[in-house]
Amino acid sequence: MKRLLDQSSLRALARGCAVLGAGGGGDTYLCLLQALQAIEDFGPVPLMDLDELPDDDLIMPCGGIGAPTVSIEKIENGDEGERLRHYLEDLTGRRVAALMAGEIGGGNGLLPICWAARMRLPVVDADGMGRAFPEVNQVAMHLAGISPSPAVMTDERGNIMVLRTVSGNWMERLERAAAVEFGGAASSTDYTLTAAQARTATVRNSVSLGIRIGEAIGRAEGDPVAALVTELRAFPLITGKIQDVERRTTSGFAAGSVIVEGLREDAGRLVRLELQNENLVALERGRVLASVPDLITVLDSETADAIGTERIAYGQRVTVIAFACDPLWRTPEGVALTGPRAFGYDFDYSPVEDLASAAP
Amino acid sequence: MKRLLDQSSLRALARGCAVLGAGGGGDTYLCLLQALQAIEDFGPVPLMDLDELPDDDLIMPCGGIGAPTVSIEKIENGDEGERLRHYLEDLTGRRVAALMAGEIGGGNGLLPICWAARMRLPVVDADGMGRAFPEVNQVAMHLAGISPSPAVMTDERGNIMVLRTVSGNWMERLERAAAVEFGGAASSTDYTLTAAQARTATVRNSVSLGIRIGEAIGRAEGDPVAALVTELRAFPLITGKIQDVERRTTSGFAAGSVIVEGLREDAGRLVRLELQNENLVALERGRVLASVPDLITVLDSETADAIGTERIAYGQRVTVIAFACDPLWRTPEGVALTGPRAFGYDFDYSPVEDLASAAP
Repeated sequence: MKRLLDQSSLRALARGCAVLGAGGGGDTYLCLLQALQAIEDFGPVPLMDLDELPDDDLIMPCGGIGAPTVSIEKIENGDEGERLRHYLEDLTGRRVAALMAGEIGGGNGLLPICWAARMRLPVVDADGMGRAFPEVNQVAMHLAGISPSPAVMTDERGNIMVLRTVSGNWMERLERAAAVEFGGAASSTDYTLTAAQARTATVRNSVSLGIRIGEAIGRAEGDPVAALVTELRAFPLITGKIQDVERRTTSGFAAGSVIVEGLREDAGRLVRLELQNENLVALERGRVLASVPDLITVLDSETADAIGTERIAYGQRVTVIAFACDPLWRTPEGVALTGPRAFGYDFDYSPVEDLASAAP
Repeated sequence: MKRLLDQSSLRALARGCAVLGAGGGGDTYLCLLQALQAIEDFGPVPLMDLDELPDDDLIMPCGGIGAPTVSIEKIENGDEGERLRHYLEDLTGRRVAALMAGEIGGGNGLLPICWAARMRLPVVDADGMGRAFPEVNQVAMHLAGISPSPAVMTDERGNIMVLRTVSGNWMERLERAAAVEFGGAASSTDYTLTAAQARTATVRNSVSLGIRIGEAIGRAEGDPVAALVTELRAFPLITGKIQDVERRTTSGFAAGSVIVEGLREDAGRLVRLELQNENLVALERGRVLASVPDLITVLDSETADAIGTERIAYGQRVTVIAFACDPLWRTPEGVALTGPRAFGYDFDYSPVEDLASAAP
């Protein structure tokens, strides 16, 4: 066991998950409250390294699916994880040994911990993305050839769907359609895998990374944004205030755009962020400052707390940063699955450090 | 065994199913071609009375779900029934003994026969509606308290969904959303039951009824419409031509309205039909001539062949008839589930014979 996830590590993790969410993955505040309650009721959750688990141990990747704008109002019942596990065990004929976040970003980095506490199961120090992405099949497991099937979905009412699809893309389509019908958000597990598979088919140590990020913000004196930029080797894109938000909850996503107006040394600049749950692209006068799969995160300029796309609002004083994604996403297959063209943009991906060094 | 469903009985059944579809249930022509091919390849299908089956025999109600306007262009692959059966047997741990049409109306009255031929299984002389209704839970099994779960859906690509819902209404919502995502139409089984349950929880002898209706049209000399009206004890509402069709494929349904302009003795009259897959209501100058759950069917005035809502078109010479539904639907529970108010109309159900005798 690497550590016990207790109050203090969960508080740090929540801050880190928000940063790694790149605006998405769902609200961390609500999920932190749920996680704190769960460990108070059931005790702290063991964080395991994948190397500690026997090869055959079954890992259940899980989390919420839908629009973050919905999930801040439509809260989980609490027993979703147990239902997902029950059906997954029934389908596979095997016991689930540990839970894993499908995505470490946002509340989805914490939700598996809430569920694991109730089931007295460990979580593994890994996830499917090393950040948050909008779509079900944008996971490391997909690139590694793991099947998304059988997937299980459930809602707070107790409805259950089991899916076996001919592709990851069909899994995304059917899960998204069901999430919309459930009211815009639901819970799911897909891309189930063994510990042996997970060692090479996930982004590893991402729970630890989340805690480290949160701790770096927490112990910063004076300028937490600067401390975080150093910790992440991030590139500040603009410091200013939110001038405009255009956001709609549609087809199971929160989509739209945000305009940040520069202040102080950035006075006169305007940066536009385009969103689909996550911040996908940062643009200035038509020039790309950063794009998926690299992470673009909006920070409160005072506290360095990341602000999700569902909470961003006119007048907030923010610093937008961008930083490198996991190297997995910079491979040709990774870029094809999660790069700008995967979201319909007509330009090629360039790493944020190249874009930053080429800036005028 | 009551009879073998051979070429001649299938041709009669197709005509009868079209009449019992009340405009819906999907195109009978395409399903007849599939059924004829299936019995040519695999031999005729035994039609069994429910009394002939042992109490414990598992019956699989099945058919297509979606908009008939889509299903005339997006044809089944042929193996959908085998996939549904495979997963249903896996879920129940029992062998399927016979198939049953979820609804006898339209192509859905024939589709289970296509699938049964390939699997060398019998079909039972019963269905869930005695007609066609738009929604999944508008079945006799629902009124009898049979659970819709577990349900299985599949498409022509091989995607599979298993659903367990907290209500019949949720089954309708989730199946409909998936059907839309599959492209507007898909195949499903729900409300699985035993032969013992089916004896009191279905509309019985509806396959025989369909064949009898088709045979009555086929042997009519001179005026097949008159022969059919006599056979069904139906009420002719208007004879004329289609003057206008407003139809849209939306949310997994074909919805809209049709205006029939009277000819000859009906000259000067205009009757409006409102549709949601099926013909729901017939109106004349604001007066209700007939409504769900009674059947409203549009017939070709020359041949008495019923015209589905997806094929109705400007200029067709038609006779609109209405006739009594199965008595099950006239109970308070039946009217609540399938009467005009269930479709959002603000008037109470009156039996078609009362409306006809009250006509000015």
